[in-house]
Amino acid sequence: MYDLIIIGGGPAGLTAGIYAQRAKLNTVLLEKQMVGGQIAVSDVIENYPGFPSISGAGLMEKFEEHAKGLGLKIQFTEVINITAEGKEKVVKTSDGDLRAKAIIVATGARPKRLGAPGEKELTGKGVSYCATCDGPFFRNRTVMVVGGGDTAVKEASYLSKIASKVYLVHRRDKFRAEKMHQEKVEATPNIEILRSHTLKEIKGEGGVVTKAVVQDLKHCEMKEIALEGVFIFVGINPTTDFVDVDKDEGGFIKANQKMETSIPGIFAAGDCRTTPLLQVATAVGDGAIAAYMAESYIESHK
Amino acid sequence: MYDLIIIGGGPAGLTAGIYAQRAKLNTVLLEKQMVGGQIAVSDVIENYPGFPSISGAGLMEKFEEHAKGLGLKIQFTEVINITAEGKEKVVKTSDGDLRAKAIIVATGARPKRLGAPGEKELTGKGVSYCATCDGPFFRNRTVMVVGGGDTAVKEASYLSKIASKVYLVHRRDKFRAEKMHQEKVEATPNIEILRSHTLKEIKGEGGVVTKAVVQDLKHCEMKEIALEGVFIFVGINPTTDFVDVDKDEGGFIKANQKMETSIPGIFAAGDCRTTPLLQVATAVGDGAIAAYMAESYIESHK
Repeated sequence: MYDLIIIGGGPAGLTAGIYAQRAKLNTVLLEKQMVGGQIAVSDVIENYPGFPSISGAGLMEKFEEHAKGLGLKIQFTEVINITAEGKEKVVKTSDGDLRAKAIIVATGARPKRLGAPGEKELTGKGVSYCATCDGPFFRNRTVMVVGGGDTAVKEASYLSKIASKVYLVHRRDKFRAEKMHQEKVEATPNIEILRSHTLKEIKGEGGVVTKAVVQDLKHCEMKEIALEGVFIFVGINPTTDFVDVDKDEGGFIKANQKMETSIPGIFAAGDCRTTPLLQVATAVGDGAIAAYMAESYIESHK
Repeated sequence: MYDLIIIGGGPAGLTAGIYAQRAKLNTVLLEKQMVGGQIAVSDVIENYPGFPSISGAGLMEKFEEHAKGLGLKIQFTEVINITAEGKEKVVKTSDGDLRAKAIIVATGARPKRLGAPGEKELTGKGVSYCATCDGPFFRNRTVMVVGGGDTAVKEASYLSKIASKVYLVHRRDKFRAEKMHQEKVEATPNIEILRSHTLKEIKGEGGVVTKAVVQDLKHCEMKEIALEGVFIFVGINPTTDFVDVDKDEGGFIKANQKMETSIPGIFAAGDCRTTPLLQVATAVGDGAIAAYMAESYIESHK
């Protein structure tokens, strides 16, 4: 039996792994696909303190080397579910059952895709799902924001201070966002709101975004807009189906400041939990706390 | 008037500065003494993800360069107090008043010193105030833990799994720590408890700790113990006197997961707040959230 099983090999999981190895917990990290998580697909990250500019993949290689250098065992397998049997937790995987005294869920979240042609190919080349992460790359450029909720409208405001021009595209004629945020974007001179419009296609040249094709749903007209960035905020899905702890309406695991979930011995860290900000910097903080609290939990239940 | 004043130039403050610059907030960071905070005096830090081993000062230089590269203004001055005048906050400093829409307090905390001869000189050379930070440097070595509270007793347990032998020195004959933690250290074979003992002196050779001199208070006898590390847990003082927000009994600022304090527009980040873990990794997460929330606060109060 392990002391600790960490599920997910992104920044939160790898940081938990670093702390667990240092605390001499017998630990395994389970990863479904590829170490690094969402950030590994980012071309450039410039807000993880200590690295002014590095590729997402490059930063995650450093995290992985750091964790492996401390002896962290990483196993590639898919987790099907977790059950608690008294003090033991049983993690059912595609390669059989694993048991541990404590679990850290660090499975992250994925932004929803629109499914527009060009979106996938140009992700990280002008298509982004995070203004805090990528906004500063578009200083004095033209960008488009897609979506009608709070995030879309707030991020349009945020981007309007960096970009020279922001198109805000929403498929309905009313926003779901708070009135206050709406009024702000309406009053911002460099934000142009395209209500009842959908993004149909993103076009690139030389591997970077150059144009967006939008359709006016009321008049069925198509038009092309020249721009450098497209920010898509149509929702985010945490990867939490496999674990039966308390979650919010969006599926994010409810965890307190100690990263404790509703089941003792199961901790959550990073984007998969109810966190105010989805960043490498915050995932790292969560991962460190989760491992420290898991160690405390294991010690006090010996 | 500034948008944001950040008080304190350690990991939390510098990270908040990085995020604030990227969000184009007109920001100044105020530092009393020296950029870097407590961690800058650490010889080696091996648990900030991405840097398997770096000096505390070296890591903080990287943070400072990162923040300054984004244009962060750093001013050296001492903060005397903060008052709220409607939506404005006034920061009184030794060089006059500064005004801002929002404040981030990131002033950190200092472990209490015993004041024993050798303690100050050998800090970072075998004398430590953080087991999570420095424990792994003492693998299979002999260490001493000084203190009688929860932290001392829990950290003695933690260190007993790494070090070959742990002396736990407490000046009273009873521990203040929770009974459960006490029983654990009493049952751990490689922990030797020295009740009614005080640490009188720490001796070094070649610049590193080699011996501790303890006194048995019941028999007034002195003895020397050969060892490599001395961990001192006799309390920690946050630097929070200058700000009048809700605090816990230890003086740590009460802040929620959004880093909000009891006064709207004043945020707290890092070791100065009620955080479960005092680490660079957690300070970085706090700093990012505090800046993001400060930006939201400023936007919504325009």
